[in-house]
Amino acid sequence: MNSFGRIFRISIFGESHGECVGITIDGCPAGLSLSPEDILPDLERRKGGKQKGTTPRQEEDFPIFKSGVFNGKTTGFPITILFENKNTRSEDYSKQRSIPRPGHADWVAHQKFGGNEDYRGGGHFSARLTAGIVAAGAFAKMLMKDVTIKAEVTEVGGEADIEKGLQKAIDAKDSVGGIIECRVNGLPVGLGEPYFDSIESVLAQIVFAIPAVRGVEFGTGFAAAKMFGSEHNDSIQNMDGKTKTNHAGGVVGGISNGNELVFRLAVKPTSSTPKEQNSLNWDTKQTEDFSIKGRHDLCVALRAPVIVEAVTAIVLADFMLLEQKIKRVL
Amino acid sequence: MNSFGRIFRISIFGESHGECVGITIDGCPAGLSLSPEDILPDLERRKGGKQKGTTPRQEEDFPIFKSGVFNGKTTGFPITILFENKNTRSEDYSKQRSIPRPGHADWVAHQKFGGNEDYRGGGHFSARLTAGIVAAGAFAKMLMKDVTIKAEVTEVGGEADIEKGLQKAIDAKDSVGGIIECRVNGLPVGLGEPYFDSIESVLAQIVFAIPAVRGVEFGTGFAAAKMFGSEHNDSIQNMDGKTKTNHAGGVVGGISNGNELVFRLAVKPTSSTPKEQNSLNWDTKQTEDFSIKGRHDLCVALRAPVIVEAVTAIVLADFMLLEQKIKRVL
Amino acid sequence: MNSFGRIFRISIFGESHGECVGITIDGCPAGLSLSPEDILPDLERRKGGKQKGTTPRQEEDFPIFKSGVFNGKTTGFPITILFENKNTRSEDYSKQRSIPRPGHADWVAHQKFGGNEDYRGGGHFSARLTAGIVAAGAFAKMLMKDVTIKAEVTEVGGEADIEKGLQKAIDAKDSVGGIIECRVNGLPVGLGEPYFDSIESVLAQIVFAIPAVRGVEFGTGFAAAKMFGSEHNDSIQNMDGKTKTNHAGGVVGGISNGNELVFRLAVKPTSSTPKEQNSLNWDTKQTEDFSIKGRHDLCVALRAPVIVEAVTAIVLADFMLLEQKIKRVL
Amino acid sequence: MNSFGRIFRISIFGESHGECVGITIDGCPAGLSLSPEDILPDLERRKGGKQKGTTPRQEEDFPIFKSGVFNGKTTGFPITILFENKNTRSEDYSKQRSIPRPGHADWVAHQKFGGNEDYRGGGHFSARLTAGIVAAGAFAKMLMKDVTIKAEVTEVGGEADIEKGLQKAIDAKDSVGGIIECRVNGLPVGLGEPYFDSIESVLAQIVFAIPAVRGVEFGTGFAAAKMFGSEHNDSIQNMDGKTKTNHAGGVVGGISNGNELVFRLAVKPTSSTPKEQNSLNWDTKQTEDFSIKGRHDLCVALRAPVIVEAVTAIVLADFMLLEQKIKRVL
Repeated sequence: MNSFGRIFRISIFGESHGECVGITIDGCPAGLSLSPEDILPDLERRKGGKQKGTTPRQEEDFPIFKSGVFNGKTTGFPITILFENKNTRSEDYSKQRSIPRPGHADWVAHQKFGGNEDYRGGGHFSARLTAGIVAAGAFAKMLMKDVTIKAEVTEVGGEADIEKGLQKAIDAKDSVGGIIECRVNGLPVGLGEPYFDSIESVLAQIVFAIPAVRGVEFGTGFAAAKMFGSEHNDSIQNMDGKTKTNHAGGVVGGISNGNELVFRLAVKPTSSTPKEQNSLNWDTKQTEDFSIKGRHDLCVALRAPVIVEAVTAIVLADFMLLEQKIKRVL
Repeated sequence: MNSFGRIFRISIFGESHGECVGITIDGCPAGLSLSPEDILPDLERRKGGKQKGTTPRQEEDFPIFKSGVFNGKTTGFPITILFENKNTRSEDYSKQRSIPRPGHADWVAHQKFGGNEDYRGGGHFSARLTAGIVAAGAFAKMLMKDVTIKAEVTEVGGEADIEKGLQKAIDAKDSVGGIIECRVNGLPVGLGEPYFDSIESVLAQIVFAIPAVRGVEFGTGFAAAKMFGSEHNDSIQNMDGKTKTNHAGGVVGGISNGNELVFRLAVKPTSSTPKEQNSLNWDTKQTEDFSIKGRHDLCVALRAPVIVEAVTAIVLADFMLLEQKIKRVL
Repeated sequence: MNSFGRIFRISIFGESHGECVGITIDGCPAGLSLSPEDILPDLERRKGGKQKGTTPRQEEDFPIFKSGVFNGKTTGFPITILFENKNTRSEDYSKQRSIPRPGHADWVAHQKFGGNEDYRGGGHFSARLTAGIVAAGAFAKMLMKDVTIKAEVTEVGGEADIEKGLQKAIDAKDSVGGIIECRVNGLPVGLGEPYFDSIESVLAQIVFAIPAVRGVEFGTGFAAAKMFGSEHNDSIQNMDGKTKTNHAGGVVGGISNGNELVFRLAVKPTSSTPKEQNSLNWDTKQTEDFSIKGRHDLCVALRAPVIVEAVTAIVLADFMLLEQKIKRVL
Repeated sequence: MNSFGRIFRISIFGESHGECVGITIDGCPAGLSLSPEDILPDLERRKGGKQKGTTPRQEEDFPIFKSGVFNGKTTGFPITILFENKNTRSEDYSKQRSIPRPGHADWVAHQKFGGNEDYRGGGHFSARLTAGIVAAGAFAKMLMKDVTIKAEVTEVGGEADIEKGLQKAIDAKDSVGGIIECRVNGLPVGLGEPYFDSIESVLAQIVFAIPAVRGVEFGTGFAAAKMFGSEHNDSIQNMDGKTKTNHAGGVVGGISNGNELVFRLAVKPTSSTPKEQNSLNWDTKQTEDFSIKGRHDLCVALRAPVIVEAVTAIVLADFMLLEQKIKRVL
């Protein structure tokens, strides 16, 4: 349930305020040269505290390789990477234990796991789990030298001017949502299958695994619902499959068509808003006003592009292994 | 690659103009009483030719049970259902073989499968494959007597007045897209997992398996990206988890929270538009103008609600089996 | 639960006395030329009635292709094959319904599926389901032109002289067990993984799916338990990995080593013996003497070699696809 | 490829002389109380150096919990357990790098992974990886309070008197193989499926994941091949399914029948024998005589019973979760 992928397969584990979070990557081809420097830049992008609008909590996020790498290369066996939790302030969270935080998984986790869940800082639900995913994405990117994957925030709080959107939230003393767009170039034709293993299906599955994502659209997406067929259809121009327009976003019938892969996702505002809220108190069984302390992101979308790139790389590397576009031993 | 599900697991097969399309359902609990009448209404809804805007091609769509049902009950073994193809006009399609139809999978299929694919009427890519999915959905619905799933078209061609949207397309002699909304009531709390098996992830995977779907959003969806946290958060009101608002659409942390599950999806306009188009001719290697003959839907979204309900039921029944909310023998 | 394989994946369905038995093969490469003649010889070997010691029931066992083959080639999409049930005598079986037959699944099926199972002729448990497996095996064999797979009965009733073993059973008016050995040549080095996906693990999983198999051993097998290490170790002779002896049976560390793959399996005597037996009567809740009517195999091992070859081919083709030794489009 | 199980799912990682070996258990029900003391006894049994015939290498084998346990209970999320490698002498092994050790995976690993594998002490192929499996087995046993699983060595070097068998090997200055038998009592009727998920299939898959196992048989096993049907059939005696004999070893049609589950497995002699051997030298491309230094087991079968119990428990707990005989939250 915490695993994803067919050949290039990841499994995540850990809790926000436990000993560590981590990931195991199975099925990565042998012989991939790598140094921590290949992974650190992406991990750095995921970290908060560097940009306006992200949490000042700064874990070191240093990847500790426990297996699967030998003499600076992947061995072909499972690669387990840990990220130790050092900079945690659990006391901040335990105070709010009696009020399940709105927008967070506190309430559902408690119901589903019978109160056995590690609730501190969101536990296993914490976005900190994405550190491992970003590391795995860095491996996947290295497997696809000719493919470029670029995600960026295109909108914050409804403003295409990111700074303006953030300022709006700062002024309102509130958190705010955003839109991320991802573009992939250099993909071979023929990745993906019709139906359940379509590029859209598999990408959407993992994109919705990113905390706070509420919507995904490919190519023209929701706007396509308002179009005529003659407008939306992309006219094929040559034997390479290059199309005049790219309303399809690079995927037709679930399969990559050689044009740029384009998709967008909606990220909800950070649930931990500085504003006072009203919700249920488990102890009194009454609703009450409360406010959330702690260090939080003003807009979680800001840290998400590197995660979006990572999950995209993971999906595409897996498809490329299945289609024999990446070798099992490099 | 043509299978989906963990315990309640479906596998589809067949081609639009081959002998049949069909499905195998594995993992359906034993002892479910059923008659064809339990399945026919949903199959009827999927069929074209009844409503304005759908194709006049009317297969009988009669489900032929080949296994897994005995004495009017499921046996607990794989249920294979066939739908024979009778009313096909392959000659309509073979004429266009030299021009891969824009918006269709003709070009990618040819590249991916080396020209071995059955291209007639879209072959395995045809929406006719959804007949089996609708049948499986009918089984899944019967397994969840207390859950109601209702999908409907809420917009055609940008118009919330469906008739008006269709008339716009008829006037333009073009096809048109639409929006479908699905609402589920009666779900227990606790279905789904964080990350890859979140309700959103698994539902999105199968929803994107429906031909022509281009976007999916849960709860407030893309609009959430424009909201403040204090607006979007749903205040929990009582010990049953009932929230004051339902911006989350019934899913928090990937897990059902007992409120109404709500999601929407964008359907692109039918690729086979009556309008003249321009695209590549494989033989001449030049682009040329052409038009598509045959019987087609003006708006494929119109036939899709029952398919959306079916895939939703399939996902939820699988989660309920995993969570032991449905017994293995009824 | 009725599926097997990672890339080349089979799913079986059907009942002995229902409409049909069948199989769906997903993940078979596109472009494999085939005619029924490529499959019929193996199906013929599986059939009874031809050799001494096999049941006189002779289904036609004619494979009806319902999907996935077009213009005499595989399309790359799921291949569904049906075998209709024509020559059934259900009345033979219904008589014994009140006594669960010893050695058969009657009793466990009834308990597990709450009496909903199709009990006629063993229903889904019937060895008739192996018809589909044999067909899938024929496809797998065709994918591996350079690999030869040969299984044969080496012992019946403890006699290496098959005729003698059968005569012993005929004289005793009883059924009898046997040993089958399978040898594979031409395998590349490097198939299989350590642990759960070792060649032994995956082969054993599917070999035990063959009804009546009670034991599997690789290379020297059980005899290895009596040996010294210096005797059992196979000395590597050259850079191709050729070993002086082959006690390992071609698999070391779960991985093929380029030597002949050798394994053996034990088949229990046919449960339906002509002899009078004693067992429980469900109606009276007392044990009683009874005898089984109907047409049965004296020794089911005799029909099994082609099934053993089929499952071996299925496993190896899947490993070869995973290792990119077989292309996705031929 | 290094994962096993459907609901209770394990994933192993690590190398013999790397930083650690470990396991992740996903799908373990929430609310299982545990202390290290519940796991240590089984880990102790797996360790060498305590009994005659086992290696004097004594890792501490102390399980370090990294996730999934909180306040002394399982949380329902992935449980990752590490075993640090402390007591390694890699120099012993590096000396033999030029000669792939017969019976070991050195040669196949080198071929399959292109020389990128961590070869020290067998790397990922090392039996040390079974430490994690034993830990997972301890969890699985705790989930099934009413089920008793007992494996023991019944034969060493062909002698049912274990001491005598070991002395034979000591006298010969050689390693030796053995037989292990496992018996399970208290199982409910109805676990397992016909075909690929039969109890025999799934158990055999994981039993062959144990290094050095060369054969598996259920119930009467290979001896069944020499029997008549009337001898082998187990007469059902009462409505609980109790049989007069137990030739089936508790499994009929792939499904547990309520009688004692019995299976045996053959373990080859330790490949690292103290005797001088002859094999290929990669550098000279010639065969040569050599001997293996280092600390090794005289008979690896001696340490294996607790591993056999562990894999059996893992399989059965998974089946019991699937059949809803174990709850998701305890």
